[in-house]
Amino acid sequence: MSEIVGTQSLRFSEAPFILSSASVVGKKEGEGPLGELFDMVGEDDKFGCESWEQAESTLQKEAVALALGKAHLKPEDMRYIFAGDLLGQTIASSFGLLDYQIPMFGVYGACSTAGETMSLGAMAVAAGYANQVVTVTSSHFASAEKQFRFPLEYGNQRPMSATWTVTGSGAYVISKQKSPVMISGITTGRIVDYGIRDSMNMGAAMAPAACDTIAAHFRDFGSKPEDYDQIITGDLGYIGQRILFDLLKEKGYDISNNHSDCGIEIFDRDEQDTDSGGSGCGCSAVTLSSYFLPKLISGEWKKILFVPTGALLSTVSFNEGMNVPGIAHGVVIEHAPGM
Amino acid sequence: MSEIVGTQSLRFSEAPFILSSASVVGKKEGEGPLGELFDMVGEDDKFGCESWEQAESTLQKEAVALALGKAHLKPEDMRYIFAGDLLGQTIASSFGLLDYQIPMFGVYGACSTAGETMSLGAMAVAAGYANQVVTVTSSHFASAEKQFRFPLEYGNQRPMSATWTVTGSGAYVISKQKSPVMISGITTGRIVDYGIRDSMNMGAAMAPAACDTIAAHFRDFGSKPEDYDQIITGDLGYIGQRILFDLLKEKGYDISNNHSDCGIEIFDRDEQDTDSGGSGCGCSAVTLSSYFLPKLISGEWKKILFVPTGALLSTVSFNEGMNVPGIAHGVVIEHAPGM
Repeated sequence: MSEIVGTQSLRFSEAPFILSSASVVGKKEGEGPLGELFDMVGEDDKFGCESWEQAESTLQKEAVALALGKAHLKPEDMRYIFAGDLLGQTIASSFGLLDYQIPMFGVYGACSTAGETMSLGAMAVAAGYANQVVTVTSSHFASAEKQFRFPLEYGNQRPMSATWTVTGSGAYVISKQKSPVMISGITTGRIVDYGIRDSMNMGAAMAPAACDTIAAHFRDFGSKPEDYDQIITGDLGYIGQRILFDLLKEKGYDISNNHSDCGIEIFDRDEQDTDSGGSGCGCSAVTLSSYFLPKLISGEWKKILFVPTGALLSTVSFNEGMNVPGIAHGVVIEHAPGM
Repeated sequence: MSEIVGTQSLRFSEAPFILSSASVVGKKEGEGPLGELFDMVGEDDKFGCESWEQAESTLQKEAVALALGKAHLKPEDMRYIFAGDLLGQTIASSFGLLDYQIPMFGVYGACSTAGETMSLGAMAVAAGYANQVVTVTSSHFASAEKQFRFPLEYGNQRPMSATWTVTGSGAYVISKQKSPVMISGITTGRIVDYGIRDSMNMGAAMAPAACDTIAAHFRDFGSKPEDYDQIITGDLGYIGQRILFDLLKEKGYDISNNHSDCGIEIFDRDEQDTDSGGSGCGCSAVTLSSYFLPKLISGEWKKILFVPTGALLSTVSFNEGMNVPGIAHGVVIEHAPGM
């Protein structure tokens, strides 16, 4: 059913398809450069709820509903749901997905969770464990600030290296049923610790992990940067991107001609005051669905390497003076021939 | 490679084996009824570290080292590690497993995480994605009290319905290589919400989820309670066990003759003042490894259904007045014929 490739990768001999996907975002994301492309933009970031956390749960619920609707499928058609978010004990997923009653695997990989859920979902379908699964991740600016930094009411200042957590959720239906895009392989990341201790500079913490996974991917598949229309990281931002280029150059890879970062694409830094870029495990999920996937569906692009990146910290680990290690999970998405 | 069974289960036609396992626990667990059976008992619950969180990371690191050592394998022999814990952003796993440099899938299912990691690990091996993987989960009394209830220094009183978080970590090497015990199937849980709002009565919150998964398991496999030498839940405790019996009786199943709960087994309630029993995603992991698995290895038992249960809450969701839903993941473990 599949081939083990190198030390960290799988190539699916029966590649599962992305049957549909959906993106739901907040007001600020809707005002950004990709605003027109999202499936749903909230008028109010509380999405009619009483708390930021419930709003984030609603994002997940809506994203799954939209993705299922596009594929004309019902929750009971989904064998598994792979889901996660950034909050302690992943409560956005627990409360957002409760009503669907789909057997659930909760996942945590910080902002790499979109790549992790898609990897596990593709593994399950390719193995014949499911005809269809759905994956979903989310983040919310206000719930994340409360969780990781300061409550909004505190009105703290942000350094330029800080990223802006995206309010959004992206969902993907992964299926045996043919569609114009398929997940042909994955490269699973390891935890990488470069000794970064600044929680206001996540890009620097995650770039070494992105480098590790991308280099492992090239090594495992015997491929090179030019083999991909685009190599897309999750939320390194402007600062993380520069570090990634430098680190990969040291390993002999130049991806500067065909690299995109979802965190850079989703906001207009000058107009929207978002400093280093967008972040959060909703960031890569909604940007892939709305902006990059259509290029693969149309055939404009043939193949991308999607590498969401995560910073592994909590306020507890940070306050205890621990480093901020990173992890990144790679997913190869291709235009399906003949579709 | 596998068979989809019913709506929530898989039966592995090439069942993966549990090649080895290990348990590391704290002082109090070492003084309990299973004390002699654990592989390692700490003399001091800080395990030589500066914080409770680092101590919990050390538990995971040691459990993995011991499990690998028993199987005469090295970290580089492991294709994946599936890991999780109860702390916000699963930092016990992130920092505990960093040095192993094994491609990692971080998982969160509250105290059901031991069942979730073993399910995903067995799926990966049975599908041919790996020859060997390792799964590990942990909990620590002091880091969990700080996370979910009150700092120890506060000296709060505990109601009798409260469970006592186990300080411990259990690791499992799941492999294609034959051994006397195999994982023959899994039943993946859904989120179940019975409207419980008392974070000091986790057993009541989790029992409905255990009931849902166990009933789904019997339905999917066409089996009945007598087909199992033992049906073993994770950490329902005395109160949750009574509720589970009642709920399953309403569905026509009586498991009262062959049910065990890891949370009940691990402590002596009267001698150790542990109220309703032990809990935490280390509880089921160390109790299975030390106490139940040997009965399957020797052939005294032929088949068990292992169902760790999790309560899905965070202090944020609890303080915002949300319910405490539950989830439970079932793993069928059998004595391997001819071994």
